[in-house]
Amino acid sequence: MENKTTHPKSTIYTRVRDRSRALIEALTPEDMTVQTMPDVSPTKWHLAHTTWFWERFLLLPNLPGYEEFDKSYNYLFNSYYEQVGARHPRPERGFLSRPSVSDIMDYRAHVDAAMASLLGANQEENFSSFETLIDIGIAHEEQHQELLLTDIKHVLSKHPFGPAAYTAPKPAKRQVPGLRWHEFDGGCFAFGHDGHGFAFDNEGPRHEAILTPFALASRPVTNAEYLAFIEDDGYRTATLWLSEGWGRILDEGWDAPLYWRRREDGSWSEFTLHGEVPLDLDAPVTHVSYFEAAAFAEWAGARLPEEREWERAAAGHSLAGRFMAPGVSSHPQAGSGDGLIQLYGDVWEWTRSAYSAYPRYRPASGAVGEYNGKFMCGQFVLRGGSCATPPGHIRPTYRNFFPPDARWQFSGIRLAKDI
Amino acid sequence: MENKTTHPKSTIYTRVRDRSRALIEALTPEDMTVQTMPDVSPTKWHLAHTTWFWERFLLLPNLPGYEEFDKSYNYLFNSYYEQVGARHPRPERGFLSRPSVSDIMDYRAHVDAAMASLLGANQEENFSSFETLIDIGIAHEEQHQELLLTDIKHVLSKHPFGPAAYTAPKPAKRQVPGLRWHEFDGGCFAFGHDGHGFAFDNEGPRHEAILTPFALASRPVTNAEYLAFIEDDGYRTATLWLSEGWGRILDEGWDAPLYWRRREDGSWSEFTLHGEVPLDLDAPVTHVSYFEAAAFAEWAGARLPEEREWERAAAGHSLAGRFMAPGVSSHPQAGSGDGLIQLYGDVWEWTRSAYSAYPRYRPASGAVGEYNGKFMCGQFVLRGGSCATPPGHIRPTYRNFFPPDARWQFSGIRLAKDI
Amino acid sequence: MENKTTHPKSTIYTRVRDRSRALIEALTPEDMTVQTMPDVSPTKWHLAHTTWFWERFLLLPNLPGYEEFDKSYNYLFNSYYEQVGARHPRPERGFLSRPSVSDIMDYRAHVDAAMASLLGANQEENFSSFETLIDIGIAHEEQHQELLLTDIKHVLSKHPFGPAAYTAPKPAKRQVPGLRWHEFDGGCFAFGHDGHGFAFDNEGPRHEAILTPFALASRPVTNAEYLAFIEDDGYRTATLWLSEGWGRILDEGWDAPLYWRRREDGSWSEFTLHGEVPLDLDAPVTHVSYFEAAAFAEWAGARLPEEREWERAAAGHSLAGRFMAPGVSSHPQAGSGDGLIQLYGDVWEWTRSAYSAYPRYRPASGAVGEYNGKFMCGQFVLRGGSCATPPGHIRPTYRNFFPPDARWQFSGIRLAKDI
Amino acid sequence: MENKTTHPKSTIYTRVRDRSRALIEALTPEDMTVQTMPDVSPTKWHLAHTTWFWERFLLLPNLPGYEEFDKSYNYLFNSYYEQVGARHPRPERGFLSRPSVSDIMDYRAHVDAAMASLLGANQEENFSSFETLIDIGIAHEEQHQELLLTDIKHVLSKHPFGPAAYTAPKPAKRQVPGLRWHEFDGGCFAFGHDGHGFAFDNEGPRHEAILTPFALASRPVTNAEYLAFIEDDGYRTATLWLSEGWGRILDEGWDAPLYWRRREDGSWSEFTLHGEVPLDLDAPVTHVSYFEAAAFAEWAGARLPEEREWERAAAGHSLAGRFMAPGVSSHPQAGSGDGLIQLYGDVWEWTRSAYSAYPRYRPASGAVGEYNGKFMCGQFVLRGGSCATPPGHIRPTYRNFFPPDARWQFSGIRLAKDI
Repeated sequence: MENKTTHPKSTIYTRVRDRSRALIEALTPEDMTVQTMPDVSPTKWHLAHTTWFWERFLLLPNLPGYEEFDKSYNYLFNSYYEQVGARHPRPERGFLSRPSVSDIMDYRAHVDAAMASLLGANQEENFSSFETLIDIGIAHEEQHQELLLTDIKHVLSKHPFGPAAYTAPKPAKRQVPGLRWHEFDGGCFAFGHDGHGFAFDNEGPRHEAILTPFALASRPVTNAEYLAFIEDDGYRTATLWLSEGWGRILDEGWDAPLYWRRREDGSWSEFTLHGEVPLDLDAPVTHVSYFEAAAFAEWAGARLPEEREWERAAAGHSLAGRFMAPGVSSHPQAGSGDGLIQLYGDVWEWTRSAYSAYPRYRPASGAVGEYNGKFMCGQFVLRGGSCATPPGHIRPTYRNFFPPDARWQFSGIRLAKDI
Repeated sequence: MENKTTHPKSTIYTRVRDRSRALIEALTPEDMTVQTMPDVSPTKWHLAHTTWFWERFLLLPNLPGYEEFDKSYNYLFNSYYEQVGARHPRPERGFLSRPSVSDIMDYRAHVDAAMASLLGANQEENFSSFETLIDIGIAHEEQHQELLLTDIKHVLSKHPFGPAAYTAPKPAKRQVPGLRWHEFDGGCFAFGHDGHGFAFDNEGPRHEAILTPFALASRPVTNAEYLAFIEDDGYRTATLWLSEGWGRILDEGWDAPLYWRRREDGSWSEFTLHGEVPLDLDAPVTHVSYFEAAAFAEWAGARLPEEREWERAAAGHSLAGRFMAPGVSSHPQAGSGDGLIQLYGDVWEWTRSAYSAYPRYRPASGAVGEYNGKFMCGQFVLRGGSCATPPGHIRPTYRNFFPPDARWQFSGIRLAKDI
Repeated sequence: MENKTTHPKSTIYTRVRDRSRALIEALTPEDMTVQTMPDVSPTKWHLAHTTWFWERFLLLPNLPGYEEFDKSYNYLFNSYYEQVGARHPRPERGFLSRPSVSDIMDYRAHVDAAMASLLGANQEENFSSFETLIDIGIAHEEQHQELLLTDIKHVLSKHPFGPAAYTAPKPAKRQVPGLRWHEFDGGCFAFGHDGHGFAFDNEGPRHEAILTPFALASRPVTNAEYLAFIEDDGYRTATLWLSEGWGRILDEGWDAPLYWRRREDGSWSEFTLHGEVPLDLDAPVTHVSYFEAAAFAEWAGARLPEEREWERAAAGHSLAGRFMAPGVSSHPQAGSGDGLIQLYGDVWEWTRSAYSAYPRYRPASGAVGEYNGKFMCGQFVLRGGSCATPPGHIRPTYRNFFPPDARWQFSGIRLAKDI
Repeated sequence: MENKTTHPKSTIYTRVRDRSRALIEALTPEDMTVQTMPDVSPTKWHLAHTTWFWERFLLLPNLPGYEEFDKSYNYLFNSYYEQVGARHPRPERGFLSRPSVSDIMDYRAHVDAAMASLLGANQEENFSSFETLIDIGIAHEEQHQELLLTDIKHVLSKHPFGPAAYTAPKPAKRQVPGLRWHEFDGGCFAFGHDGHGFAFDNEGPRHEAILTPFALASRPVTNAEYLAFIEDDGYRTATLWLSEGWGRILDEGWDAPLYWRRREDGSWSEFTLHGEVPLDLDAPVTHVSYFEAAAFAEWAGARLPEEREWERAAAGHSLAGRFMAPGVSSHPQAGSGDGLIQLYGDVWEWTRSAYSAYPRYRPASGAVGEYNGKFMCGQFVLRGGSCATPPGHIRPTYRNFFPPDARWQFSGIRLAKDI
């Protein structure tokens, strides 16, 4: 008598893995090899690293008799897990011409087959022992799907002719509603994940904190609004900027968001995953650093929200939004509707909260405990997901984080103010 | 009939200015000219910049007929006030051979005489109009006294023979008491400055926040304890470190606090303002970065305190401590006594709180509003003052802040933990 | 009646082009995309740039109706010809994921077909008008074949597992004859190319110069001899080194030739185009910088030759030597025989002559005049060709040149001394 | 009976030492401490290093019972003599606040007194044993006098207000004669020092070499001529430049000689040791790199001379010229007269000869042998001396050398051409 069954996460696993493969359809092996800055990983590295994560943390400990596809991959495709051993230096990932893309696709198939064994041919009572690791593995691969998109966007942007990654139809333009302020009372509220369902360790523990009354903008800042900041000499007015941000302006010569390009006739275009397109003035501004977001807010007589203000505003909202959607568009678009719109999707929203531990936070033990805690220094929290975030990946308590000078993510601005 | 009087801050002004002069007694003009890294300013620059602050913000707006000593000084000795105009680049302060130290002492005398006029020959009813600026000017000069000490220490340390700045007697060694934990209840408490008396803008507004129960170490971490961390391969164990801190270890080759030197016989010495001395194992460890403080705490099974935890623990404590004391010692010493000791003085204590705005914080208007807010990015708060902090300068709400890799301040470690 | 004929260079053209294609047989598209340092170009860039050279300088001016394969290639694949317009920055050649290797092979086919038209269907009387350009184009493609090999060697060496580019059989080891000195009289001799047959502009004009009596070593320095230098603390003895070379030792930590690797058991291996192999002690040392060559010579009580000494010694010698030979070996081997051996092939020989203009030298006019003259600064001359030099490419007057810190070429050492 | 006498070099020694002291009369201790780039040494370092040279190479070996002034100075003030032991890093000479200028003047007096003993109270028969070292020490101190001037000029130029080192009267302007060409026959000639009288080792051995006919300009290139080059877009025309020089233009933004400054009204001024003055169009252009000199020559349809061409032209010329002259002027001036003028003095003249060994050159043995030979790499020879060269220091065979990007010396241009 057979009491084996299929793990309930099995379908999700397959869907996530299929999506990774769908993302690279239009890319060549050469595209997938290039690294254009240390922050960027080659596409094929993402494809291999996510696979290594399943092999290392799920298959090797849990599938008896599993054979590693290639032992050298533990060195090549470990990202930053110190407990797992030495690894290839991050700035040299673009030197890894081997294994080829084709080898890596074989590696994916090998691991997928083994995962099918693990998820399909196991005793039900064993499932729970690695269920959390499956959740982490899925969330991990989803995160790398977003990075894969932002990284290949950077790679293609550094090509002098800026080829498109995707030929999906450009979005129909839409007129964005005017900005309104939504007010919120102060008080003592609970924040962070409550432990039901999957969340990263940094989202908890759930805890109480005090907010003072505040207002939040109904929608993200648009390209038109950001353009007004530029035209008002925003990038040349030192008093609007954090001291370190002003230093970056001087050093790097920033005068617009990362992918904006001023044409000879004075108009602006923007490099997107669909190639270079005229700037859509109604769409949310994106690819701005924290420094630019904070300077814009200062110029606008407002400020950036605290992450707990954002979380409070998001309480009870639907998780709907414009997320990664192969075949549609991978670029933010103008929103519509009343109320707080576009909290989720389109652009990540910079908060003025430094990324730090919640009260009583302790990292998980073992190598996966290196996932979050060791980055709690010098970074700021972003909330809400973007057009490159896989659907289903986000939660109200989800904390993304990047250094204040990062511009290659789909990062945007939602204003807040004290009331 | 004479209704003029002397401003009540007049004595304090004179005492502060005298103290600046006392600090440089043993230094040569050449010592006072050298800059050894961009963070360090030459001694004579500190002497001139603090004087410029009085001239620019007190005398020019408030003393009719005041003539600037030298108009070029507004360019040379402005530190970072964007609203006051262009300024000499910070990394090139060591190129300013002119004005000479002697010229700068004349400048100080010129400004002191004018300040005497302003403070001594004014209508009493006018005093209040610039009283806050006097407080800021005093606090500002006190801050630069501490920087003058830490900067000249760095300058002398880069000389191959490490000359002493001061010949004051070395401290008598004392045996430090064992570490004990002091427990504190959680709850909702008020934090920040309440507006009575002088404080920097970043110390307020006063606001409520929630703490969870915690314990704080009775005293700072000692050199002996830190040495145990080193000997347990603390600097070679990646998992103890924040990711960025580990990167610094690899890049810079850090293997001990900034001024420790390993002698050929394996023992340790330490460079101090009194020259190189054998390491006092009972004294608090100092000149450690945030990265090192956090790694030590991790190794010790504890963590660094939140700044509000520190502030709560300090409530009701005396402000007494070992502060800057010309003629005695400018180096941390072993403490003694029961209860929480050395909260103030000896070493600044790193907290794990990123330096950020309190709720409803708005910077002061005008150039002095550039004092604090524009640095709220990438820095961590330190509390409690050090042996180089002028006496009377500190408050329970006082927030010092430095980047996590800064080591040239008298920064130390006090452990905390959740209970 | 047909008076058209085939250009006599037609066969040579075809042979050279075929050889380029043969060189990449074992490489993947990913291998051919990677750039590991600014000096290194991706393989596919070499394949495209050599093709662009034919298109730009031969086809466009001489083949009526010729259509450029892709006008953007003039930007992408111009190396340094300022007169031809803007070009892609050299350190970012590794960002050019597009055109793909496959596109570039199509480009090569397109240009080859057009060249066949030009060379095969022309009036004989027209041939002479572009004959020199054909010679330059062939020599140019041959030079890039050598660079292709040294560049892909560097690329593969930066992979943590050092894959082999070629599976050709490793050379049979052979015992090298002992070093003997060959003496030459001084006097006034003629040097440089006499204008008969093809030569680069920098090889002439032919001119007289005076030599003093000297002796030249019978063969290149071997790995065994170089190892003795290492073991005698050659890399730790400052007085052997040029001042700038010693600075490089300290900065870069050089302690052996570029591709030598010390194994755990203390023996040495060497990375080659055939993968990592045990060091052949009888083979010529290679991948040494000018600094290392000069320090070795100093240690050996000798010096490096002047380039005119080398040229005088080579007068009358056969051009035979171990050159690029697909399917055999692309690594220097021990020589044999009496007399001066291995003057040609195996390793380029550093001379102590700075690369500079011969008397009355003037660069050719037009863009091809940028080929040599503008590099006459800071480089040293190498003579004799290497195992990666295409057969037939070299001449007695041939002057190769590289900066003194270059190590990725097949550069070696032949000693000289005054007598 | 007394057969002791005074060494014939005694007067020269005293004159040279006095001149060093005269050079610093207008400088403050702070001026003499600053280092503005690694190539620049602080004034007080020059004062100490020249003194150390006498102590180390003359007094310690030759004066029985001589006691070192301070043993630590051997570490602090050794420049680059590897055989003499470890030394302070060159880029950190500006960190040496101690010894003070006053200490260094005491050091000078101590050494001068001992030198007086050595030179005055010795047996005549012993004099010859160290006569060459005295000559080297004098030449060495003279070289550092020139460097002292060019270094303090750089230091003062980096001060925002550009103070003058000397208040000497500005030179009367004079109209420069038009440029004429002086022709020279080719043939075989002898070059280099013949060993009679003092010369540096790199000036010999005397040897024969062949020149082809050439012409040399009658005078150096003027500021007016160089300005025409600038106005003809010389700095924006890539084809005029050596490849490496063009790279420097792009990296550094060079658009004029080092100390030229474009005023708001479009006119040019020049920073000199006498402060900032309007550009004298008739004076020789100075503070240009080899790259600029070569590009100018290319633009002018000429070339730079070979060093042997210069030496041939200078044969038989008087050594007269405008040299260092305290109280007069330390800036090049317009020349006058017929024939080849200003061969000596005013500005060093870049030659296109890479600095390398003459035939049969061997460095002197011992530490002083490190003086010249180890710099024979990547530098170019300059001839003729400048307005900052001490009178009597120069010879027809004298070879100065600097890297091609050096601009802080008084380097200028004399054109040559083939005939």
